[in-house]
Amino acid sequence: MATIKKLIDRIIVFRNERDWKQFHNPKDVALSLSLEASEVIDHFQWKSKEEIEKYIISHKEEIGEELADVLYWVLLMSHDLNIDIIDALDKKLRKNEEKYQIDKAKGKHTKYNKL
Amino acid sequence: MATIKKLIDRIIVFRNERDWKQFHNPKDVALSLSLEASEVIDHFQWKSKEEIEKYIISHKEEIGEELADVLYWVLLMSHDLNIDIIDALDKKLRKNEEKYQIDKAKGKHTKYNKL
Amino acid sequence: MATIKKLIDRIIVFRNERDWKQFHNPKDVALSLSLEASEVIDHFQWKSKEEIEKYIISHKEEIGEELADVLYWVLLMSHDLNIDIIDALDKKLRKNEEKYQIDKAKGKHTKYNKL
Amino acid sequence: MATIKKLIDRIIVFRNERDWKQFHNPKDVALSLSLEASEVIDHFQWKSKEEIEKYIISHKEEIGEELADVLYWVLLMSHDLNIDIIDALDKKLRKNEEKYQIDKAKGKHTKYNKL
Repeated sequence: MATIKKLIDRIIVFRNERDWKQFHNPKDVALSLSLEASEVIDHFQWKSKEEIEKYIISHKEEIGEELADVLYWVLLMSHDLNIDIIDALDKKLRKNEEKYQIDKAKGKHTKYNKL
Repeated sequence: MATIKKLIDRIIVFRNERDWKQFHNPKDVALSLSLEASEVIDHFQWKSKEEIEKYIISHKEEIGEELADVLYWVLLMSHDLNIDIIDALDKKLRKNEEKYQIDKAKGKHTKYNKL
Repeated sequence: MATIKKLIDRIIVFRNERDWKQFHNPKDVALSLSLEASEVIDHFQWKSKEEIEKYIISHKEEIGEELADVLYWVLLMSHDLNIDIIDALDKKLRKNEEKYQIDKAKGKHTKYNKL
Repeated sequence: MATIKKLIDRIIVFRNERDWKQFHNPKDVALSLSLEASEVIDHFQWKSKEEIEKYIISHKEEIGEELADVLYWVLLMSHDLNIDIIDALDKKLRKNEEKYQIDKAKGKHTKYNKL
């Protein structure tokens, strides 16, 4: 299965062929990340739980495309800022394991500082 | 290097241990995606190009953590909606290769429908 | 009751006293607008309809504060871009009255281009 | 000049004629607020300071329309949650006057907790 590294390589080739690095300053790249996340939300707004369930089945491809857009920018930004995103996710999960201890957090949607 | 699949597995174990699946409806998960993307932006606001360059060097860990949060939700949502995110990214890149033909798009930050 | 103009005047006095105009470029101001809107959302995430109803009653002040932050940036941006926001809202409502004709749109959450 | 109250009244008439109150739960309304704020940002992305200056002059109407959309949702939400938005903005400005004392905050884009 694809490694993160291969995906990043492909994204960078795509960008280099188009000479787009010049536009990819961190502020605008972060904006893209946010704008694409908004497009994911767009699919679920004004819909009830039942409507969403049906919608997901009939629009899986479209939602997948929006999620791919978000992933694209996460990987590109990690690359440009020289961040090892696998390592970052690993660290964050460890941190959350500490913050949300199983015995306290189980079954609760409470922020760690209120547990 | 880590595959996407292994990361997803780890995220799902983390969630199952805390019995949090019950809260993860698509609308609220999409909101998390968007809220975490906003936290990435937060690092770059009100800063000039030069300030951002310095900031990135001294805050790489914090930015990496925010990007990891976004990745966390992309992977969790893909899993829950039964979307193959690798395949989705692959398709999206192919689509963008079509939309942004190298000879037309090179060196321009113009939307494909205005090229 | 307060007019929009008086509110804008007060915001501009607040800013001028602090000499903050130099930071208020349109991109960063638009970011503030979006970040404050995210803080409004934050109040409603992970909550069921019933939980939200209770939450609103006990957190009216906090939510009002976030909405005020959004309004602050709408008014400041309108001012800086020399946009008459009252006129803009008036025009937009007229446009929406056209797009969402009562007989077609009544009781439906469908986008105008799908009505 | 228009008072906030008159604008709210008009928005509510527009909504009632279309029988849309049934869809306007706080979570989805907050989403609208955020999605419309994203559309404001969209106008400024990938553009340099100089490009933005030109763009604003030639696209004032479009930007005004997006700001009007944000204002629409701020006013509608205030109304539905029974929040006096004028009073909320007044309180917030007073609070910010305290947090950002002129002698400390003048000419600085530093968060109050770091001043």
